[in-house]
Amino acid sequence: MTLDNLFRPALSQMLPYAPGEQPPPGSGIKLNTNENPYPPPPAVVEAIRQAATGPLNRYPDPMANSFRQAAAEALGIPGPEWILAGNGSDEILTLLVRGFVGEGQKLRLPYPSYILYRTLADIQGASWEQTPFEDGWKLPAAFGNNSDDLRLVLLPNPNSPSGTIVPPSEVKKISDSLTCPLVVDEAYADFAETNCLDLVKQNERVFVTRTLSKSYGLAGLRFGFLVAQPHVVAELTKIKDSYNCDAISIAAATAAMGCKDWLANIKTKMNATRAAMQTRLTAMGFDVTPSHANFVWCQHPSSNHKAIYEYLKQNQILIRYMQFPDWGDGLRISVGTDEQIDTCLSTIERALKS
Amino acid sequence: MTLDNLFRPALSQMLPYAPGEQPPPGSGIKLNTNENPYPPPPAVVEAIRQAATGPLNRYPDPMANSFRQAAAEALGIPGPEWILAGNGSDEILTLLVRGFVGEGQKLRLPYPSYILYRTLADIQGASWEQTPFEDGWKLPAAFGNNSDDLRLVLLPNPNSPSGTIVPPSEVKKISDSLTCPLVVDEAYADFAETNCLDLVKQNERVFVTRTLSKSYGLAGLRFGFLVAQPHVVAELTKIKDSYNCDAISIAAATAAMGCKDWLANIKTKMNATRAAMQTRLTAMGFDVTPSHANFVWCQHPSSNHKAIYEYLKQNQILIRYMQFPDWGDGLRISVGTDEQIDTCLSTIERALKS
Repeated sequence: MTLDNLFRPALSQMLPYAPGEQPPPGSGIKLNTNENPYPPPPAVVEAIRQAATGPLNRYPDPMANSFRQAAAEALGIPGPEWILAGNGSDEILTLLVRGFVGEGQKLRLPYPSYILYRTLADIQGASWEQTPFEDGWKLPAAFGNNSDDLRLVLLPNPNSPSGTIVPPSEVKKISDSLTCPLVVDEAYADFAETNCLDLVKQNERVFVTRTLSKSYGLAGLRFGFLVAQPHVVAELTKIKDSYNCDAISIAAATAAMGCKDWLANIKTKMNATRAAMQTRLTAMGFDVTPSHANFVWCQHPSSNHKAIYEYLKQNQILIRYMQFPDWGDGLRISVGTDEQIDTCLSTIERALKS
Repeated sequence: MTLDNLFRPALSQMLPYAPGEQPPPGSGIKLNTNENPYPPPPAVVEAIRQAATGPLNRYPDPMANSFRQAAAEALGIPGPEWILAGNGSDEILTLLVRGFVGEGQKLRLPYPSYILYRTLADIQGASWEQTPFEDGWKLPAAFGNNSDDLRLVLLPNPNSPSGTIVPPSEVKKISDSLTCPLVVDEAYADFAETNCLDLVKQNERVFVTRTLSKSYGLAGLRFGFLVAQPHVVAELTKIKDSYNCDAISIAAATAAMGCKDWLANIKTKMNATRAAMQTRLTAMGFDVTPSHANFVWCQHPSSNHKAIYEYLKQNQILIRYMQFPDWGDGLRISVGTDEQIDTCLSTIERALKS
């Protein structure tokens, strides 16, 4: 038997998840993976520099309790035991799928949405089903339907690529209808006006995931967390590696939770850039979906999206061209600095004319 | 249905892995989790401080290529594509079990050994079987036997709790006999005189795992790696989170790979302390197993091991009391500084007299 036959069949059959392109730093304008264009809060940088000379020869706190305490206070969560820290919210999503979805079972996601969830199902040897959004990115009631083998439902909210948000009242209806857990992936919630944290308190089957990658400018740090009722956190702790978060990222993430003013300012600044982007793209003839996240989804009624993407790439500007089978395609542009966005949009104008 | 019934049954039934106690830093002498008593190389600390002001708002290199290049050079591995970086070797072990062992399948480990492997099987809904070491911590030929459902064999080498090592020639015999992959967990190999890296080049079914936690004094950083043939690394990459290592730990681990003289000095110093520990424990009447790792396993023919552990704990000294059902118990003492070890052993002397 060759080694290829020794891998679990689920793996041999699956395609890997392809994250957005990551060129070397400094090579042009990067608006393709929804990173924050601004550096993280100075208090976070200082916390990292201090942690560098801390006792790195010792294992970190397995539960990242300093972070849990700070996050509970910052977010108005009843206590630290409602929080599970992870090596990026990617790890939290992996733990959730491993916790609830066995081989041959199923998870559900909306469509078009974050296709990583499909990869996580594939790795498990599980299956996935997609519920198409209705016109205007509305979530159909069928998203709350139950079936025997359905074990987990995942809702990115705000959604990607659309940047749209399902109001908490609608999410509540879905979660009340479901007998399995609902994960509300709030990676972009810091740029929106509503979130579903309150639903976690009302329903043990609602979980919220968050990341520090987007709003806090810490994609390089790998830190995310789950908000769920304490017995859920306790059970998922059994699956995680004993020391899943390192001492430096715990110190940095703890410091970040204290930067409320910084976060409010970043939100104001980036949402202003977003509004200007939307106005100008609309003026250029794009159909622009009003965004609640740090990116804008747009479609041009008469131009070739892929050609625009390629034109930008030739000019050292990376945005995301996304094509969803049986649905359509479009462009997702991350909110950058005003200068980056001006360069990007001016280049798109040239592309439309060429 | 309550939420408890919604977790995968494998999880509800399993007991969590219990790592060694982690009291707050600075509270006594800690010799229970085989951490390095010395801080990491100064070049690593400097790399972290520099990375703190790097582009943390950007995602890290998904494959940690700077580290892979440096590690390949430092270890004489054919190229970076033979290395997979992980968030601690714990993550690498998790990926290996997820890659090869499906629900209802089996992994094998020696006994007594690193019981985390059992937890990893439990999480998968897989089973595990233990092959007892023979007298003198020799590995029986049966460790290389095959069976239909056996999908992965794990060998910590040097082993814990014993600190013993199976020579590469013996490991080769086992791996030649096995039709499934053999993972040689070399967490402690930097303290030994031999390792199995060469076997990886000879056999696509031999994988070696390493960690920076022990020898490099970087338990707090969470960085480990796999050495395997390139097609194995490529397939396992499909399972890992896209950005499983953060920018700071990549920079730190890359710097560590350049610290060959520092590593040689630490090995000389700690192995000298280990030799002195072994001599003194033997003089105190312990049966001491000659160690090839940064800890010493010892058993006293007439004293109560647990009572010694408790006595030390009352004196703010933590060592590991380990009890293996159907086998026996003993004490595992990490190599500390000479001063820490002197205090620890003097306290054990008092415990023996009390």
